[in-house]
Amino acid sequence: MSLLVTGSIGIDTVESPFGKVVDTLGGSSIYFAYAASFFTPVRLVGVVGEDCPADFLKPLRDNPRIDMSGLEVRQGSKTFRWHGKYHQDVNHRDTVAVELNVLAERGPTIPPQFRDSRYVFLANTHPALQGELLDQLTAPTMVVADTMDLWIANERPALTALIKRLDGLVLNDGEAKQLTGQANVVAAGLEILTLVRQFVVIKKGEHGSLLFHNNKVYALPSYPTFCVVDPTGAGDSFAGAMMGYLASAGACDSGALRRAIAYGTVTASIGIEDFSLGKFLSGSRAEIDKRMKEFEELTRF
Amino acid sequence: MSLLVTGSIGIDTVESPFGKVVDTLGGSSIYFAYAASFFTPVRLVGVVGEDCPADFLKPLRDNPRIDMSGLEVRQGSKTFRWHGKYHQDVNHRDTVAVELNVLAERGPTIPPQFRDSRYVFLANTHPALQGELLDQLTAPTMVVADTMDLWIANERPALTALIKRLDGLVLNDGEAKQLTGQANVVAAGLEILTLVRQFVVIKKGEHGSLLFHNNKVYALPSYPTFCVVDPTGAGDSFAGAMMGYLASAGACDSGALRRAIAYGTVTASIGIEDFSLGKFLSGSRAEIDKRMKEFEELTRF
Repeated sequence: MSLLVTGSIGIDTVESPFGKVVDTLGGSSIYFAYAASFFTPVRLVGVVGEDCPADFLKPLRDNPRIDMSGLEVRQGSKTFRWHGKYHQDVNHRDTVAVELNVLAERGPTIPPQFRDSRYVFLANTHPALQGELLDQLTAPTMVVADTMDLWIANERPALTALIKRLDGLVLNDGEAKQLTGQANVVAAGLEILTLVRQFVVIKKGEHGSLLFHNNKVYALPSYPTFCVVDPTGAGDSFAGAMMGYLASAGACDSGALRRAIAYGTVTASIGIEDFSLGKFLSGSRAEIDKRMKEFEELTRF
Repeated sequence: MSLLVTGSIGIDTVESPFGKVVDTLGGSSIYFAYAASFFTPVRLVGVVGEDCPADFLKPLRDNPRIDMSGLEVRQGSKTFRWHGKYHQDVNHRDTVAVELNVLAERGPTIPPQFRDSRYVFLANTHPALQGELLDQLTAPTMVVADTMDLWIANERPALTALIKRLDGLVLNDGEAKQLTGQANVVAAGLEILTLVRQFVVIKKGEHGSLLFHNNKVYALPSYPTFCVVDPTGAGDSFAGAMMGYLASAGACDSGALRRAIAYGTVTASIGIEDFSLGKFLSGSRAEIDKRMKEFEELTRF
């Protein structure tokens, strides 16, 4: 089934205890699309500025499973830039600098050839813009979105309106508590579950994830690893593999959802072993499936 | 197989968003023993002061699976007291008051009839004292201990000496990082694994646990619940059910260890649903097994 992602494309600078990369490929739609492409063809919609180097997106253009015809190079605009620095404990980071640039302008347009997309992921951006993107689709069967603390705090009406239109919402534990006012993350997830059509996924970073579906709660640890070079994009890779698996399975029952978040977990665990898309560029579905088997083994009791 | 626990017995006062209990039964050996008793007979060694009310330990004396003949009522001493207050998010708490009392004096003596114990859990206390208790045992086949940040910071030589004598060490994620200087909890666990004879369990509270055994890492989420009235003793209940299961199984291979920490997880999740031993007193092994089945179901993918 066709999978569409809309999200950011960034020129990232990342410092971690393992090194530093300058002006490297990043952004939510980039990590999402590459991770999803191991499972299903992906359609990417995003905007860069005219400053974006010609070969910057070559890794995605070279991937036959990623359709880049929804990329807009906006004249007179500049590409989104982010500079982050991870602590010795890479679960913590500081944002050194951020330039929203094109992300602060009008959103992208879904090109005509993408409007029939069935599986849709609206990566984090202003919820009103997520809604406008959704308006352009003619036959979505599963719409999932991400959000962030900024919109929960400042754009509650727009976010509430968007959530009603979603099959699934993906957010982290702090955001789930913020959205509901619940101190307990399970209570928060069950409350959010009443607002969406099908499911909620709460990401807890190194602590795994929770799935809420059909009034039940499912729990998954993260893949336990000490090889964490750059966690940037881990949540987007998680969502990409999750949606890629769901689109390839063409199902959304509890079994498919649980398998999808397990695939999200292991795919993200591979991505964080190098900077930017490094590990994905040399990766394969076979490598993901191998880690999935290991993950099943080390979580069984 | 015989299971011995040495640890604290406390007169606890606990405040949580769900109420307050004053001068209630607490302490590491109490939670441990009651949780373990669902799996195997338990021998308890601990000390209270002469201020301890006559019927204070009745719930344990009434449990035919707990042998209380190792209890010392020390004349001229006072019982350990702890007063804690949980935040709205019960994963955080403040210690309002603590009186070490008898815990600051000489340790208990293992009575002759307990010295042949095979399975031994040395709950958190000064590592030199844990070593002295261990010296009194004649034929231990599995010795597991807990520790805390205080000893890691201030009693490193004694703790190092103790750890060498252990089959297993149970500690939380912050302590594991502190003990090793590792920022990554998986790296920390693998390093500690080289110091003990068999296994390491790292407890992450609401985020589950990690098991290190035979150079491998296993991960388990916590049982996802919003019913958390009083988390006091959850780590001790976890360890009690874990050791109780191991003693009953008479095994320590990776399969038994994984099953043991799963039993620890679900037993602890029941205990925190009420203050003090409330839930355990009306609980049963059947209830634990029922939750174990649910836990298997909601973590399978």
